[in-house]
Amino acid sequence: MAIVLGPNQYGKAEVRLVHVARNGPVHQITDLNVSTALRGDFAAAHLSGDNAHVLTTDAQKNTVYAFAREHGIGQIEDFAIRLGHHFAGSLPGIDGARIEIEQYRWDRIQVDGVPHDHAFSRSAGEKRTTVVTLDRGTAFVVSGLAGLVLLKSTGSEFSGFLRDRYTTLPETTDRILATEVTARWRYAQSDLDFGRLFDGVRTALVSTFASLHSLALQQTLYRMGEAALTAHADVAEIRLSMPNKHHFLVDLEPFGLDNPNTVYYAADRPYGKIEGTVLRDDAPDPGPSWLTLPGFC
Amino acid sequence: MAIVLGPNQYGKAEVRLVHVARNGPVHQITDLNVSTALRGDFAAAHLSGDNAHVLTTDAQKNTVYAFAREHGIGQIEDFAIRLGHHFAGSLPGIDGARIEIEQYRWDRIQVDGVPHDHAFSRSAGEKRTTVVTLDRGTAFVVSGLAGLVLLKSTGSEFSGFLRDRYTTLPETTDRILATEVTARWRYAQSDLDFGRLFDGVRTALVSTFASLHSLALQQTLYRMGEAALTAHADVAEIRLSMPNKHHFLVDLEPFGLDNPNTVYYAADRPYGKIEGTVLRDDAPDPGPSWLTLPGFC
Amino acid sequence: MAIVLGPNQYGKAEVRLVHVARNGPVHQITDLNVSTALRGDFAAAHLSGDNAHVLTTDAQKNTVYAFAREHGIGQIEDFAIRLGHHFAGSLPGIDGARIEIEQYRWDRIQVDGVPHDHAFSRSAGEKRTTVVTLDRGTAFVVSGLAGLVLLKSTGSEFSGFLRDRYTTLPETTDRILATEVTARWRYAQSDLDFGRLFDGVRTALVSTFASLHSLALQQTLYRMGEAALTAHADVAEIRLSMPNKHHFLVDLEPFGLDNPNTVYYAADRPYGKIEGTVLRDDAPDPGPSWLTLPGFC
Amino acid sequence: MAIVLGPNQYGKAEVRLVHVARNGPVHQITDLNVSTALRGDFAAAHLSGDNAHVLTTDAQKNTVYAFAREHGIGQIEDFAIRLGHHFAGSLPGIDGARIEIEQYRWDRIQVDGVPHDHAFSRSAGEKRTTVVTLDRGTAFVVSGLAGLVLLKSTGSEFSGFLRDRYTTLPETTDRILATEVTARWRYAQSDLDFGRLFDGVRTALVSTFASLHSLALQQTLYRMGEAALTAHADVAEIRLSMPNKHHFLVDLEPFGLDNPNTVYYAADRPYGKIEGTVLRDDAPDPGPSWLTLPGFC
Repeated sequence: MAIVLGPNQYGKAEVRLVHVARNGPVHQITDLNVSTALRGDFAAAHLSGDNAHVLTTDAQKNTVYAFAREHGIGQIEDFAIRLGHHFAGSLPGIDGARIEIEQYRWDRIQVDGVPHDHAFSRSAGEKRTTVVTLDRGTAFVVSGLAGLVLLKSTGSEFSGFLRDRYTTLPETTDRILATEVTARWRYAQSDLDFGRLFDGVRTALVSTFASLHSLALQQTLYRMGEAALTAHADVAEIRLSMPNKHHFLVDLEPFGLDNPNTVYYAADRPYGKIEGTVLRDDAPDPGPSWLTLPGFC
Repeated sequence: MAIVLGPNQYGKAEVRLVHVARNGPVHQITDLNVSTALRGDFAAAHLSGDNAHVLTTDAQKNTVYAFAREHGIGQIEDFAIRLGHHFAGSLPGIDGARIEIEQYRWDRIQVDGVPHDHAFSRSAGEKRTTVVTLDRGTAFVVSGLAGLVLLKSTGSEFSGFLRDRYTTLPETTDRILATEVTARWRYAQSDLDFGRLFDGVRTALVSTFASLHSLALQQTLYRMGEAALTAHADVAEIRLSMPNKHHFLVDLEPFGLDNPNTVYYAADRPYGKIEGTVLRDDAPDPGPSWLTLPGFC
Repeated sequence: MAIVLGPNQYGKAEVRLVHVARNGPVHQITDLNVSTALRGDFAAAHLSGDNAHVLTTDAQKNTVYAFAREHGIGQIEDFAIRLGHHFAGSLPGIDGARIEIEQYRWDRIQVDGVPHDHAFSRSAGEKRTTVVTLDRGTAFVVSGLAGLVLLKSTGSEFSGFLRDRYTTLPETTDRILATEVTARWRYAQSDLDFGRLFDGVRTALVSTFASLHSLALQQTLYRMGEAALTAHADVAEIRLSMPNKHHFLVDLEPFGLDNPNTVYYAADRPYGKIEGTVLRDDAPDPGPSWLTLPGFC
Repeated sequence: MAIVLGPNQYGKAEVRLVHVARNGPVHQITDLNVSTALRGDFAAAHLSGDNAHVLTTDAQKNTVYAFAREHGIGQIEDFAIRLGHHFAGSLPGIDGARIEIEQYRWDRIQVDGVPHDHAFSRSAGEKRTTVVTLDRGTAFVVSGLAGLVLLKSTGSEFSGFLRDRYTTLPETTDRILATEVTARWRYAQSDLDFGRLFDGVRTALVSTFASLHSLALQQTLYRMGEAALTAHADVAEIRLSMPNKHHFLVDLEPFGLDNPNTVYYAADRPYGKIEGTVLRDDAPDPGPSWLTLPGFC
């Protein structure tokens, strides 16, 4: 028996980068949070503190900023792939990389109905995300979104469920359904129009949430994923984590009042948590796509 | 010398209330976080634990929910005034109340370009706020907003400042100006069209931020406040707290690259913090309007 | 009628400073979050963007770091007073300053029962705080603590309260009492042994919470404040904000189980919020001590 | 090609449970955050909204509370195993469960040097954790801790690292080393004295951090893991995530001051992030132990 070093990675997390594209007076801004991680032969650093194969996390940060200047950014997936290929291919002892990017959305401010050239307001808590894994020359791309909060004030039922000794929940044919969607979808390849695909998947998710008469949050989740895959052949698989943000009808009877699905208490904790995968049965091998992301196998 | 009880208040904080108005198939939702506090003769509770004059915080919570059912909500200011009058006027020993409400914004989901009847997505981190203080029958209304994040990619200078032994900052004629606005404005009276006024003040603030060529964040703050007061005679005073969310130009020279105001590092801490008041010189007496809110006198 | 500039201040917030005192092999660390704000004649900056009287927030930050090196730190109150006198006394147009400091606590790591020379672990979320206001040469000192979470599993009642139409809460003679204490106390002068006083006030607060059989959280609050003032003649006034962190007994009857004050649900929101002041009737004038801090008058 | 349902799970997250053991006047409290998730045959719920195999998340919550009353809690691992066996073994269509528990630490308040019977203060942000996975009758136990913040003011070097075009970092032989440890370790079996083992692993981690002269955070990480495995034969594997919380020496030269490792700026973002695994080469198969937890393969 021996004690040994197992899987490991290291990098710089949360490099905050704002890029201003100044093509004439109308500016575009790109606001990112970039995390890099390298994989490779780092046994010496762990076992004896020999850093000869260690590219410093400071240099990784510098690379993010320098690449933004040298090559611009474009879609976050393309920027991540570019960084990943650089790290995983150009240095001794480094053979893999994982680049994670969050993008914050900004809207152009309207002044008297006219979009302003260089003034913006930040929209929503919603983020667009990507995790690109470079593994022996191949880029695996998992994109997604987080912080998308959705609510239906009707069109949601929950009944016919299993009842055991600890079940007291009444059935309902009309409830509020609310969730905060975290979605991650895996692309079948890495040379795609990622901006158009992001918009398409997001639209499929949101529209399906709105349109489906829901019998279970599981059903809503599955149909949202199915809609995304149906709309876009390049999406091989999607994983959704959707908390059930409970809204409880307040009992107003003690005060002589009825409550016909009008007044709700929005609870914090506990909350339901529904997680699931929707995929094509002929999806390509995920490789290391999901290794550092929670799965539900 | 004696030790005595000084000013005090108590109540229920953060009552989460979601109200669904079901006028036919098209629903409206109102999503609030309500905090109540009572003032009055509570010496006995403090000195001897005698609760005879204490309306429980649980009852205050119940009242919020019951009033939402009995009277609906409408504008948050009107809902707060209604609650405040109830608490401060109807019970022995209670002569003042403070009602604070935060409102979260939701957008109607568009499905194929059509606004959905009962499906919504939550917008922005931005909140609309009000703090209504009832004092011996009078309602003082301070409304506001929080979490409004704004950024200009140009049109901002900073130069000509005082230099002391510890000053090393270079002057600049072109920088990113970014802030997260917290604004609170005091109305001259309590019988107003609060929804229209909120929209008007918000528009004045955002438009001025965008349009003004800024020589100092202080100047931007003042002009924003001035624009709000100019547009709306019923606004007596406005207080703004505007952190200077620093975006530092990254030095790319070590890598042989220039950086013509293109690549920025968005810093977390420390940050500048600019706070100021703009008011009419004939503004009515604020009374207790600001007592529980930070001021900068 | 004219629109005018009212009270205002500006500064650098959240300067994170870690100071290592290396007196031989045994190190001491001081971990602070410092915020500075200046007051004075800043009308020109607001009205026309003329910064001639503006000491940059960057210079304020530099001063914090330089003073830590030049004079060391000592007690946070003394460090704040030193900074305040510097800012408020040495520069044209600046006549007031507000220095706020939070201190994080670290424990020395024990290795085989021996305290380590230079290795530490961070304790608790609890912070020690001070807000020092310099006003025309006088220092007003308000110290405090935040994030002190306390709980009693018995020894707390709540009964005999007012009942109105919306009151449904049952009375109880045995409940969990839990709170997160934010305390701020005002010293009668500024030349004191602040470290010893902090320890004394903290001990008075915590011991009283533990020892008092509580009939109301208001009573607990008052007695805690009273104990602090009784123990320390230099404390003129104390303000306490103590949320009632509700722990509800879970109803296990549907499962054929009793629940003799054993199994509780710890709720997040809403929560009670009890705020009060305890002071000496001959306390010196607070001046601007509380101007930027919430009060409850 | 078809679109199909992949791996999925659902449950109740963050059930806040406080248990009071009242064995005579001296109380013990246990403060937990429990999350349950079930795995099994839930295709019907996803595909058609048929909930016949769905044990409601509400019932899962009820079970947590009822079990706390019926069987007490004991060590969090034992409580999680008990819950997991119940869910995964007793209901049709459910064949796996994942129970995650966080435990918050409380200290007994000392009054005049005497530990109080029933009054407590919450310690640290540090949490003890466990994730127990039940899979076809077998319990896999991964325990850990989170939020353990450690700092060394000396005894840490960083030099001899790889230099590329983007490397500008100077070498150092004396720096502050600070981190916030998240550790998860897998036990070789599920019938152990988990309380004693937790204390032992924690002591090994903290002592090694303090004692080791560090040449790289990777080295510190590896030695911490190695110490834990050396001390406890029942620990098969440990995974550590240790951000490098940067403390930068402030350049005081512009102010005519030296800075002999005395005054530091504690940065927020970006930060280094070092993650690694230490394991026995004969460790038993992890099965689904890590499936829902981030790995670094």
